[in-house]
Amino acid sequence: MRVVVIGAVALGPKAASRCKRLMPDAEVILIDQAPRISYGGCGIPYFVSGEVNRVEDLQTTPYGTVRDAQFFKSHKGVTALVQTRATSIDRAARTVTVEELASGKSSTLSYDKLVLAMGSSPNRPPIPGIELQGISPATNLDEAELIRNAAASGKVNNAVVVGGGFIGLEMAVALGDMWGIPTSVVELTDHILPGFLSPTLARMATRDLADNGVNVYAAEKVLRFEGDKGAVTRVVTDKRELPADLVVMSAGIRPNTELAREAGLTLTERGLIVVDDHLRTSDPDIYAGGDCVTVLNQVTGKPGWFPLGSMANRQGRVIGTNVAGGDAVFPGAVGAWGIKLFAQNAAGAGLTIESAQREGFDAINVHVEQIDRAHFYPEKHLMVLEMVVEKACRRVLGIQGMSSGGDALSARINAVAPLLSRGITVQDVSNLEVLYSPPFASAMDIVNVVGNVAENILEGRLVPMSQEEFEKLWAERGKDEVFFIDARVDRDAASLVQKYPANWHNIPQDQIAQRLDEIPKDKPVVLVCNTGLRSFEAQLGLAAAGRHNTRSVLGGMSSAKRLGVDI
Amino acid sequence: MRVVVIGAVALGPKAASRCKRLMPDAEVILIDQAPRISYGGCGIPYFVSGEVNRVEDLQTTPYGTVRDAQFFKSHKGVTALVQTRATSIDRAARTVTVEELASGKSSTLSYDKLVLAMGSSPNRPPIPGIELQGISPATNLDEAELIRNAAASGKVNNAVVVGGGFIGLEMAVALGDMWGIPTSVVELTDHILPGFLSPTLARMATRDLADNGVNVYAAEKVLRFEGDKGAVTRVVTDKRELPADLVVMSAGIRPNTELAREAGLTLTERGLIVVDDHLRTSDPDIYAGGDCVTVLNQVTGKPGWFPLGSMANRQGRVIGTNVAGGDAVFPGAVGAWGIKLFAQNAAGAGLTIESAQREGFDAINVHVEQIDRAHFYPEKHLMVLEMVVEKACRRVLGIQGMSSGGDALSARINAVAPLLSRGITVQDVSNLEVLYSPPFASAMDIVNVVGNVAENILEGRLVPMSQEEFEKLWAERGKDEVFFIDARVDRDAASLVQKYPANWHNIPQDQIAQRLDEIPKDKPVVLVCNTGLRSFEAQLGLAAAGRHNTRSVLGGMSSAKRLGVDI
Repeated sequence: MRVVVIGAVALGPKAASRCKRLMPDAEVILIDQAPRISYGGCGIPYFVSGEVNRVEDLQTTPYGTVRDAQFFKSHKGVTALVQTRATSIDRAARTVTVEELASGKSSTLSYDKLVLAMGSSPNRPPIPGIELQGISPATNLDEAELIRNAAASGKVNNAVVVGGGFIGLEMAVALGDMWGIPTSVVELTDHILPGFLSPTLARMATRDLADNGVNVYAAEKVLRFEGDKGAVTRVVTDKRELPADLVVMSAGIRPNTELAREAGLTLTERGLIVVDDHLRTSDPDIYAGGDCVTVLNQVTGKPGWFPLGSMANRQGRVIGTNVAGGDAVFPGAVGAWGIKLFAQNAAGAGLTIESAQREGFDAINVHVEQIDRAHFYPEKHLMVLEMVVEKACRRVLGIQGMSSGGDALSARINAVAPLLSRGITVQDVSNLEVLYSPPFASAMDIVNVVGNVAENILEGRLVPMSQEEFEKLWAERGKDEVFFIDARVDRDAASLVQKYPANWHNIPQDQIAQRLDEIPKDKPVVLVCNTGLRSFEAQLGLAAAGRHNTRSVLGGMSSAKRLGVDI
Repeated sequence: MRVVVIGAVALGPKAASRCKRLMPDAEVILIDQAPRISYGGCGIPYFVSGEVNRVEDLQTTPYGTVRDAQFFKSHKGVTALVQTRATSIDRAARTVTVEELASGKSSTLSYDKLVLAMGSSPNRPPIPGIELQGISPATNLDEAELIRNAAASGKVNNAVVVGGGFIGLEMAVALGDMWGIPTSVVELTDHILPGFLSPTLARMATRDLADNGVNVYAAEKVLRFEGDKGAVTRVVTDKRELPADLVVMSAGIRPNTELAREAGLTLTERGLIVVDDHLRTSDPDIYAGGDCVTVLNQVTGKPGWFPLGSMANRQGRVIGTNVAGGDAVFPGAVGAWGIKLFAQNAAGAGLTIESAQREGFDAINVHVEQIDRAHFYPEKHLMVLEMVVEKACRRVLGIQGMSSGGDALSARINAVAPLLSRGITVQDVSNLEVLYSPPFASAMDIVNVVGNVAENILEGRLVPMSQEEFEKLWAERGKDEVFFIDARVDRDAASLVQKYPANWHNIPQDQIAQRLDEIPKDKPVVLVCNTGLRSFEAQLGLAAAGRHNTRSVLGGMSSAKRLGVDI
């Protein structure tokens, strides 16, 4: 029995090792065109930043052994052929033709089972000047070393990152945080992390970046790169010119599936390899996984794409088991992700409000801000959570959040993520059993509160206003068409009342019933408090008094501050 | 419509407020015998430690307003009668008789719906001397103030905590950590947190306590308290005498259900009020929740008891909804919990191996130790996870863990806890979708690894040895009946080889196949590495060579060190 695995970064080594463990007598061959294999590509930004000391650290085991061909032979019993490119697959003959890159020599390897783990490559859009020196996608270790050395040399005065996705932002943080390089991010769509953050959360993230010297230019297109003596000096967009002696291209990735296409395997229109829930391709002797396949999106029920190192590892194990005759299932994914910015961290799973609407769901986005543990506990952080809910059936479609406490945010996203594929509803989230102890959670934890708020909105008790609507109405306060009430206690509202005596009215929540006379009946009333709880209670009080033309601002002044609402 | 709620600590105020929100026209009356209501009782240890500054902080809202009777009137529209005891319920007349404690005056309150939220009281075992001054259960704010004042005065030279449950340990940490008071914990059963931690994890927790000046005496019974001039000076157990001028009694709690019993409501043998999944008692006009009811244990399918502040809050909301004519369900619980010790934190959900076996499950306990994020990321912690699995069907019954990173531990426990009621299997845990990014998780995260290891054990590939077995065999190494192999690289094993040249053999995992001759065939082989991964691979290597009499030590030297195995 011979198993050939093409691609040796994440999924390939995992599948090969698992397979060999289960079938010690099998010959397992791992092929990769690069000299370095089995590295943590996701760690590149942390190497560039200097948090990871040596590039080898990304290629070593936790106990410090470098995972090279020798390692795979001695530790795993797997033969790794590096600097060797698979050039074609002959499915009828069950052979792979490979080329040794150093010598140019070609040869043929027969296989009983074949595993495709070619991963993905960065897009290289045909922008004029893209061939200039200093422009790099930063997706392999060699490029990472060049960037780190350039940053460390002090010769990079300005950096530009093209693309505000995960890698782009992580690289921007690495350059800005550790090396103090003024860095800009140019993003083609309306906001960073499109498809992962709502516009609100994206704006909060953008502010965290800006506060730390990374400027984001969204809805902006790179027209060309300009240079001097072959090296980049400037990025020209449709709106501005940015000086740059280092450009990181993170304009998306595409699956490396040419081999699979040429071999006649079934691919999607986007070029992803189609696999079943055992990660088997249209050829029963060929398995595939990682960045080059499509798996079920368990939220939409449609084919999804989840190019993530964790998927590659888990899928690699499933493939290894199945190649060895086992019966492991990979049921699909909902897409759980996280990113460390500067002071803030963002994370999420499932659909955002934008992606839910694009998928045709009639959905609402519920926004909550609350302390992440008992409010009396001294070390704590404010956390924002947003939950996307399908209106009619109250099914939860996604959850996203932001906080300076990254692990605490993880604890909430992880509690919901594995349930998204199991059809949970708002009521399930209200009752969700997360661990409780004052140093770790609130007795009514934020993750339960986001369920409670969703329920109150869906049942019409809480009539919400988004921060963006609030901002717009506040900017138009001169029209005097809306009556703003700050429902906080006097001392918290005082400074704004003093600043805006004509427009900002303070009626603490507990005084609403007694001070109805002060509230005009002929204008919509906008209620604000610190996070949205007292403004909701004020709204209920007004409703009980027959006043229904009111809205309660979700996330209150805390979220307004995060967004930089001009107030 | 009048709603009467008896008990105003956690569930009562929540149920009352929710109910009033939904039915603004209803009269809602909250009764409590204590002067202070609606406080965070779980915060008492953090007030005693000084982390929470003033006792009032446990009774205030996040925005600093004290939740007293006035607050409930003005902010919630709820009438709170404090220092008022409910003395009887007349279900036929639908009235509650109450006594004003100050005046001794009795009166009768009629109700349409009644909510029982009397909570629980600390056990007061009939130990001789228990009436001495300085012995306190530390469950209400007055007692908390006395203890804090005593600790702060510098007059407490030695403290003893009776009972190694959550409150007991939190109090021990508070006294030991912040005030530096030499503190002992006396626990009647075999180990601390019985029913929540395995013996292994309990021993790890005990060591963390001991390293910080808190000594645990388990399997030990308090015989009497001795005193001088009416104040406690000594705790006498069946094994020793402990000096003590402060004793915290945390010997369990009992539900306050006398009223319910006298009113003829259905109770369990343990004295817990029986409720349906809408939290309605055997009387359709009476609801109950929190510490005084039994709800479904979703793991065992039997009635469970979960006296936790978070349960009380979530159940309070469900009751409030249902009293107001809604249709909210409380499906039961699996018991998710957490505790901060000194350097370590512990958390879990569901059954431990001991409780699973007591419940009649044929189960195994899987023990894993691993770094809690990408191993190349600079800030990281080792984490221990244990998962309890029913053998035949591979259903997951519980998960527990320990780490210095408390929120990161939360992130793993929370990912599994809500799934325990949904019948997840080992394979689901292997594929569990938790968020991935190097600063927060590993590409093959520890929570997936515990699934993988369980699978390997259940399929017979991994033949495990527990740390306790390893310790025992190592202690008997003089018999020379077992061959110990350290499968780590030379430099990691060198010091032990030097210390124990006759018994500790170093064969790095990758050299196993070539050095079979060094391994005797007539003795069981015990394989150890740093965390258990390489010893497993070594075991597979030996199996491939026909050597099957081997065991791989789960958690390796990392867990041995946590346990203080003498090696």
